[in-house]
Amino acid sequence: MQRITETDHVSLGQQLEFLLELEKLKSIFRRSYILDTDRWENDAEHSWQLAVMAIILSEHANEEIQPSHVMKMVLLHDIVEIDAGDTFCYDEKGHTDKADRELRAAKRIFGILPPEQQKECFQLWQEFERGETREAKFANALDRLMPLMLNYYSQGKSWKKHGIRKQQVIDRNKHIAKGSTILWDFASTLIDKAVEKGYLAA
Amino acid sequence: MQRITETDHVSLGQQLEFLLELEKLKSIFRRSYILDTDRWENDAEHSWQLAVMAIILSEHANEEIQPSHVMKMVLLHDIVEIDAGDTFCYDEKGHTDKADRELRAAKRIFGILPPEQQKECFQLWQEFERGETREAKFANALDRLMPLMLNYYSQGKSWKKHGIRKQQVIDRNKHIAKGSTILWDFASTLIDKAVEKGYLAA
Repeated sequence: MQRITETDHVSLGQQLEFLLELEKLKSIFRRSYILDTDRWENDAEHSWQLAVMAIILSEHANEEIQPSHVMKMVLLHDIVEIDAGDTFCYDEKGHTDKADRELRAAKRIFGILPPEQQKECFQLWQEFERGETREAKFANALDRLMPLMLNYYSQGKSWKKHGIRKQQVIDRNKHIAKGSTILWDFASTLIDKAVEKGYLAA
Repeated sequence: MQRITETDHVSLGQQLEFLLELEKLKSIFRRSYILDTDRWENDAEHSWQLAVMAIILSEHANEEIQPSHVMKMVLLHDIVEIDAGDTFCYDEKGHTDKADRELRAAKRIFGILPPEQQKECFQLWQEFERGETREAKFANALDRLMPLMLNYYSQGKSWKKHGIRKQQVIDRNKHIAKGSTILWDFASTLIDKAVEKGYLAA
């Protein structure tokens, strides 16, 4: 459904339509709780937090990176969940067709934009997904680190609720080291302490 | 209260402490409704949306701008509301001491960061508040445009609830033109149509 009918400027109309479509990201909920609350975090808030992390933590990347490129990737990385939904990171079944669902979503949603921007945004999304460039490795590290922190500083509430064990958390998060060994050292400490404190099953 | 005790890396500890403090922005609610819902938008979601707008709409700025600089400003611009709260844009009384409250908040919150980053982030915040540079004018335009759009496309729900009139909306939003005459043209059309459709009192 086209909502923007108040301008004759074609590309502006497409851009504003895309921005209104993205409004839905505020209603896609993840499995991390907001600290000190009983509310789940949504994708829009999560994306904001990663972008701020990109500003603040970029000196800790293994390789020299362009923080603004990381920012763009993380701001857009979850947009596909508007159609594909949030797949819980420990849901193995949900992951079997995740790539297909998300690719279809990326084509539809970025397809709302003018042609040049479609291409640029689609490439940013794909770069994040592939996780091969310096910036993508670091962006993926941020995307793993923050949920781990939220879980730890909320006393493992989501880990306990879903019966998650230490090895699953390590397997899920060890890729942080590809983007930043310093951040992975910190994450490892959190995982060990989480077990010690009873937030996470051994 | 210091939460981060799991690293000996001093500046990393300060940076993560700052990032956890910012978690509170997810619980600062604004007076705009999320489209098609009865839920108020929070500052974290709002900041994400403005940053995406900075990526998508920068070609419409009156002057040539660095989109990444706009992104940084909008990602951080509302952080002061953690202490100072959201001041409704049509609340004249609330605006009398807004600047003081926000300055104190900026000093405390950015003060959590390592010295160099304190300075950088404080300057970004101040640049946004002053609204004098090219990027700040455009960032301020985005910050006005999106609430107007959310209000219009939710049939003026927040305007009606607060008894807002057309002239107030014009006075509040005409500064959009300083950052982008194209976006102000669009905004003016929305305001006129809002009155026609009965979303906004004449």
